Amino acid sequence: METAARRTRRRTPEREAEFCGTVLELLREVGYDTLTMDTVAARTRSSKATLYRQYGNKAQLVCQALRHAKPGDLEEIDTGTLRGDLHELVSRGDDCGMERDSALMQGLAMAVRANPDLRRAFKDLLIEPELRAVETMLRRAVDRGEVRADHPALAYVPHMLVGAFMARSLIEDRPPTPDFLAAYIDASVLPALGS
Amino acid sequence: METAARRTRRRTPEREAEFCGTVLELLREVGYDTLTMDTVAARTRSSKATLYRQYGNKAQLVCQALRHAKPGDLEEIDTGTLRGDLHELVSRGDDCGMERDSALMQGLAMAVRANPDLRRAFKDLLIEPELRAVETMLRRAVDRGEVRADHPALAYVPHMLVGAFMARSLIEDRPPTPDFLAAYIDASVLPALGS
Repeated sequence: METAARRTRRRTPEREAEFCGTVLELLREVGYDTLTMDTVAARTRSSKATLYRQYGNKAQLVCQALRHAKPGDLEEIDTGTLRGDLHELVSRGDDCGMERDSALMQGLAMAVRANPDLRRAFKDLLIEPELRAVETMLRRAVDRGEVRADHPALAYVPHMLVGAFMARSLIEDRPPTPDFLAAYIDASVLPALGS
Repeated sequence: METAARRTRRRTPEREAEFCGTVLELLREVGYDTLTMDTVAARTRSSKATLYRQYGNKAQLVCQALRHAKPGDLEEIDTGTLRGDLHELVSRGDDCGMERDSALMQGLAMAVRANPDLRRAFKDLLIEPELRAVETMLRRAVDRGEVRADHPALAYVPHMLVGAFMARSLIEDRPPTPDFLAAYIDASVLPALGS
């Protein structure tokens, strides 16, 4: 009865969203490799049997949680200038949101090397939406004549942005923030593009 | 007798170097969180009791292995131009060396957040030597008049370099190489500095 009741509760979209949110929280706290089905069961007040039945194994459960999270809607950004677009891109989240994304990346860094499904779900959530948005912004900047179409730095703007996001916690012992990235864009990314 | 013999063997510098090298190999393969004293004992053909006696615990053992590895001697680089210096900096290793450093960073990404000693040993090996070398190179470039002393990008060169190194495996699904970083320096870092 208890198990059946829990299974029914799990099926609601609200409960599923809460469940997936809790799994991502745990990933940020302890990382993928330390995460156990026991911890997930305890924190989400589920039975381990239910988790295995619904998700198969830890990797599939984590993939599902990643796929459930919505990436930011970045394609709609269009301010009219490259500087405006890039600033808007990095100011979408607050400090906490960026710190959370950074923690999630660190928590999954090792696991995504070994597991292609996990890597796919991770990139779909945290990397690809940014890459597509940056590509659109740069194409428009070239069309407007803000950046030379053959500028060699164009191919490296994703590395400059994702890289600074990832590197800050190692270099400065604090997580990336919107303010840090906005200053970085003005000081480094736009000058690199001759813009 | 067996244990005493092993302990004696451990004391030679050659054996210690081999032992620390094997621990770093394991960190690249499975990451810190998955690494167990059992795995270390098996791979290094040591007894677990000896490992605990010599190193205390896993964190201390890994710190010791990181501290034992020599960071590259980067301070001696001085080619006469900023471009030459930065190219020399990234061409010190071969493709494999860079892939190894990248794997080690991923293997320790989560653990260094929680453990200050580990973070210190990790940064001393993989981050600080690069930061000091870049700082020296930039100071000389400013002294030579290659870069304006108040150029805002100066403060972000470490983020641009360490960042591209870290971001490449996520963006392009392949590890950083000396060739990639040399092209990145020419296309992005030097133009950002107006150089």
